[in-house]
Amino acid sequence: MTPIEFYFDFASPYGFLAAMQIDRIKRPIVWRPFLLGAVYKKFGQSPLEHPLKRDYVIKVDAPRMARRLGLTLKVPHGFPEHALPPSRAFYWIDGQDPVKAVAFAKAAYRRYWLEGRATSDADAAVEAGATVGLDRDILLAGINDTSVKDRLVLENEGVIAKGVFGSPFFIVDGEPFWGSDRIPLILDK
Amino acid sequence: MTPIEFYFDFASPYGFLAAMQIDRIKRPIVWRPFLLGAVYKKFGQSPLEHPLKRDYVIKVDAPRMARRLGLTLKVPHGFPEHALPPSRAFYWIDGQDPVKAVAFAKAAYRRYWLEGRATSDADAAVEAGATVGLDRDILLAGINDTSVKDRLVLENEGVIAKGVFGSPFFIVDGEPFWGSDRIPLILDK
Repeated sequence: MTPIEFYFDFASPYGFLAAMQIDRIKRPIVWRPFLLGAVYKKFGQSPLEHPLKRDYVIKVDAPRMARRLGLTLKVPHGFPEHALPPSRAFYWIDGQDPVKAVAFAKAAYRRYWLEGRATSDADAAVEAGATVGLDRDILLAGINDTSVKDRLVLENEGVIAKGVFGSPFFIVDGEPFWGSDRIPLILDK
Repeated sequence: MTPIEFYFDFASPYGFLAAMQIDRIKRPIVWRPFLLGAVYKKFGQSPLEHPLKRDYVIKVDAPRMARRLGLTLKVPHGFPEHALPPSRAFYWIDGQDPVKAVAFAKAAYRRYWLEGRATSDADAAVEAGATVGLDRDILLAGINDTSVKDRLVLENEGVIAKGVFGSPFFIVDGEPFWGSDRIPLILDK
């Protein structure tokens, strides 16, 4: 079976909600973090442009959807900020061990959206790495590695080329699904 | 029980999808059409601003969600256009018979999103009215009545004051729900 492509931004509440329930999908999944800000910049937009919409998402809907998963949402400090450190850390780990990269992504997401750590804080990413057995200094060096920075730029360009415009975003046998609330449709396929 | 407030734009595909399944909610519902464009204008935004998002909604997701309801979506001619005629017609009918206004709204929605009629076309609104027993000439005069035009302006202002920023939008015992895919949460309440 073709793997499902799972695109997400660590700074996205619905990306977090997707990551917390994606294991319900019993198919191979390729995890691909990206920076939604970079995608929107290309189109001259911002993801949560509307003040009322942003308040609704952050204060009402995302916490409500988290409660349905038995989770208590805590918005990342300084939200919305970029998520460069965990995105780069992911690709550094992925280059060596894709399974560990997924474990890291889950640990990082929990740190941002359950503990409220800042997505832009390299220390928080390194701590998430430590919980899955990664050496702090080595991971921090990895985050700052030029080849990893280049990899993330390439991944962002690839995401734009694929027509991804939001987080989370799934491509299942060529069919696009946007939003954590489309997971039931993927399960029904 | 306090009635559920249901805000929708006739030009909104997810508003249509909500209207087609809202009878699953076994509580009194107050239907309130509004013009999403007027709300966004206030914030200097447009509802489907992102070209990729718009293509996804219109070509992929809304038709897919319609199929799950056993319906075949046909995008209104000239979409996206304003929905002034059906919105004004609704309030003209509502002033005399709120139950008939809801029947009109369902008939109009089906005309726009199953037959592909233009939302800006007064004839299409008048034809929808005829299917629920309304005289064409009287309804057309009603659409052009100054008091009805004023009523719609007032309703739009009220919608903005309530923090509604999208279509469909529900307020249930003070709690906001945005999107047809939140209907299951309303049912779970």
